[in-house]
Amino acid sequence: MIAATPQPPYYAVIFTSLRTDIAADYHQTAMRMVELAEQQPGYLGHESARESIGITVSYWQSLEAIKNWKQQTEHLLAQQMGREQWYTHYKTRICLVQRDYGFEKI
Amino acid sequence: MIAATPQPPYYAVIFTSLRTDIAADYHQTAMRMVELAEQQPGYLGHESARESIGITVSYWQSLEAIKNWKQQTEHLLAQQMGREQWYTHYKTRICLVQRDYGFEKI
Repeated sequence: MIAATPQPPYYAVIFTSLRTDIAADYHQTAMRMVELAEQQPGYLGHESARESIGITVSYWQSLEAIKNWKQQTEHLLAQQMGREQWYTHYKTRICLVQRDYGFEKI
Repeated sequence: MIAATPQPPYYAVIFTSLRTDIAADYHQTAMRMVELAEQQPGYLGHESARESIGITVSYWQSLEAIKNWKQQTEHLLAQQMGREQWYTHYKTRICLVQRDYGFEKI
């Protein structure tokens, strides 16, 4: 679903990735990371899709919240597994969301 | 592919959407919009994936470049078609990319 984020300003982390063909533990860990992120202070939501590339955007109240999530112990292990096993290439972009607008069909 | 963006700061537009089941003209228009965006001054790249939701992130040099793209004539028509035909729900977030880092397997 589209994340129900509050009025800006807030932060977004855009994580774009290319996968290897190693499937072991990937989906299980991805689901666990969502579960853990949702428990982090300052978490506001996330959106994710994968076709030829994967894009996951997570939303946060502050840079401090993003930093804490990056350093969460189980997440650090997942990041290491990501580099060793699951990804050939990724890019993480830390962004300040300055403005948003939307549309919803009645 | 993962967009080869320059050193931050630069801007990102995160467009998250849910589709209707109306396929007519959608893919053709989406491809045309990429072609047009690439010709816009200040365009830096884009990334896109769709599963249960679609996420398209486009990258830009400035807010001015984003505004000019939003108001591009053919793009305005596509936005209108989007609301009338292709999307049940979307959200657009305008972001300042403050920092990025990545990983690439050798």
